[in-house]
Amino acid sequence: MGVAVIGASMTKFGQRDAWIQELLAQAGEECLDDAGVTPTDVEHLYVSNMASGEFEGQTGVMNALAHDLGVLPAYSERVDQTSSSGGAGIYEAWQSIASGASEMTLLVGGEKMTHKTTGEATDIIASITHPAEYKHGVTLPSFAGMTARHYLERFEAPRESLARVAVKNHKNGVDNPNAQFQKEITVEQALDSPIIADPLRLYDFCPITDGSAAMMFTTEERAKEITDEYAVVSGIGGATDTHVVHERDDPTVMGGVVESSKQAYEMAGLGPEDLDVAELHDMFTILEFLQLEGIGVADQGTAWELAMDGTTAKDGNLPINTSGGLKSKGHPLGASGVAQGVEIYEQLVGEAGPRQVDAETALACNVGGFGNCVITTIMEAAE
Amino acid sequence: MGVAVIGASMTKFGQRDAWIQELLAQAGEECLDDAGVTPTDVEHLYVSNMASGEFEGQTGVMNALAHDLGVLPAYSERVDQTSSSGGAGIYEAWQSIASGASEMTLLVGGEKMTHKTTGEATDIIASITHPAEYKHGVTLPSFAGMTARHYLERFEAPRESLARVAVKNHKNGVDNPNAQFQKEITVEQALDSPIIADPLRLYDFCPITDGSAAMMFTTEERAKEITDEYAVVSGIGGATDTHVVHERDDPTVMGGVVESSKQAYEMAGLGPEDLDVAELHDMFTILEFLQLEGIGVADQGTAWELAMDGTTAKDGNLPINTSGGLKSKGHPLGASGVAQGVEIYEQLVGEAGPRQVDAETALACNVGGFGNCVITTIMEAAE
Repeated sequence: MGVAVIGASMTKFGQRDAWIQELLAQAGEECLDDAGVTPTDVEHLYVSNMASGEFEGQTGVMNALAHDLGVLPAYSERVDQTSSSGGAGIYEAWQSIASGASEMTLLVGGEKMTHKTTGEATDIIASITHPAEYKHGVTLPSFAGMTARHYLERFEAPRESLARVAVKNHKNGVDNPNAQFQKEITVEQALDSPIIADPLRLYDFCPITDGSAAMMFTTEERAKEITDEYAVVSGIGGATDTHVVHERDDPTVMGGVVESSKQAYEMAGLGPEDLDVAELHDMFTILEFLQLEGIGVADQGTAWELAMDGTTAKDGNLPINTSGGLKSKGHPLGASGVAQGVEIYEQLVGEAGPRQVDAETALACNVGGFGNCVITTIMEAAE
Repeated sequence: MGVAVIGASMTKFGQRDAWIQELLAQAGEECLDDAGVTPTDVEHLYVSNMASGEFEGQTGVMNALAHDLGVLPAYSERVDQTSSSGGAGIYEAWQSIASGASEMTLLVGGEKMTHKTTGEATDIIASITHPAEYKHGVTLPSFAGMTARHYLERFEAPRESLARVAVKNHKNGVDNPNAQFQKEITVEQALDSPIIADPLRLYDFCPITDGSAAMMFTTEERAKEITDEYAVVSGIGGATDTHVVHERDDPTVMGGVVESSKQAYEMAGLGPEDLDVAELHDMFTILEFLQLEGIGVADQGTAWELAMDGTTAKDGNLPINTSGGLKSKGHPLGASGVAQGVEIYEQLVGEAGPRQVDAETALACNVGGFGNCVITTIMEAAE
């Protein structure tokens, strides 16, 4: 059964004076409005959220949201796949429609993080790493630093190429009113920013963020009755890589990206050459390169060239992270994958405003852990 | 597409000297063995777990488990629906097969709780309540006490009827080697035990428990190729009730049970009169009555009679909680709904040993929060 997306929304990302339940409700209500769906028509509600219990001592957020949105007695569930919880929510929403369990599924992803110190937030995030590595003090930024050094040296990529990812995504974020940062930066600023995990510097990292995003899914049949403007999830796949990062054969190959995108392309009957725009999980700048290679857009060790030659800029051949990406838009864990979906939906239905590019086919790649789990979604504009 | 269960397992429930990752791996490995499935044949892995982060500071348990079981690159996700996470996992596993996303799905539910004090564990569990009620000091046991008093007085039910639920389930648990308690109790012991939330006493409550349980799902077509002994998930449904408990019209009606069982009956083309055995969520003894009424086996205010006249005993017309229920078997949050599924599977394929009853059709009802969300599953023996 064809699965359609008929509405999307996101809150302002950034430092928000609202707790998780309020953030989720805001995105959820706006999505109901955007889709033109009556709350009681919702049959399933998925909440993508990694750690409301750890961040706020509040659990059961899916039940609270079902209550607050007035969608009762809809089924409600929390989906956690760490940083890719949002992508996992898209997969669950897709399965709920494709299986016939639901005809109208609302997905809301969110996280409230900024009330914690950076150290506290990093500790909560680091709890996803394998204890065998965690006990050595490993955090996700440290993995990113080691991987970036390896990539730059092995493939003789200039350090500037990473800075160009940050510059591009900041530039895109200027046109996104919901982005945490709406400010351009220069290559020089990026290269001169403080070292976080050598060779990576402050501007190679996404910020800590509060925010929420939502999407409405239904059958393609029902979508046609409701609206002329919808998108179709034509391909989706998910995969897991080793939990112990050092067990991977090649640190520059994200196995979960390769496998999940392969599944998504097969389902859609498409290949990387068919993509018009994509949102990639640029939690660290280096990850944009590894994902461009993982989804087959660039050969191994060559994606850095696309940052240097402008291919991935908004006016390039394959715009990447028109939303501003995690780098500029922010990364509220459970919301990020949903916000990727919101961006490609808006691009496909022509609602991206100043960020609009010409797109019929779009891809989103959401990464959990340090590539521990990945969801790749392909959406197409309705014919 | 018909969804079949071809294997099941559970660890010993109780106080376990093992952490969550080890408990999950134990049940998962035993389930792979029981189903005769090679790890790499698993395409989706769901982990039902409410709070590994809060209990142990460990998240990403689904990725860790995928790694430990050798099912990579299978998709892995954590499903949280508080105390009904296990039932939600059954629903997700069903959707994964019915949607065609997966042909072989492993579900593992687990929780590690006993290393915390009872107060700490109760606090973590209470974090699921609505902040509007939580701030008044409400906990799930206190809701149970108020509901029990209301029920007993309004329907003129004898206090002894609640004790008989505990006595029956403890008796059933004696025959379950994996139960936390394998000891019979008397009505007098139950009635004389310490008051916890008046009128409920110690023996009206399930214990705090460590443990894990697992089930293997596939298409009915593939099940037939693999084994002669399998069960079919013929009906399943899920629903949410008000998150603020005091907003419910009638405290003795569990709306989520009514709605989810209605969905499950409709899908299966069955009714309450067709059930041969059922597992109900007896986190508190009073809940067994409310669920018997919610699933339509008894009229409102009359389920207590079934405890008094022996209808729900193992040798009665409709045995309830042959596993020992949460009361005797224990209640490791994320595992409990899966363990209910394990019990009805074993009853349907004739593997329940000394607990075996004559059953072709079975139901499991898994409750999250204080009825905030409910999953009802109906399984039938393969023809």
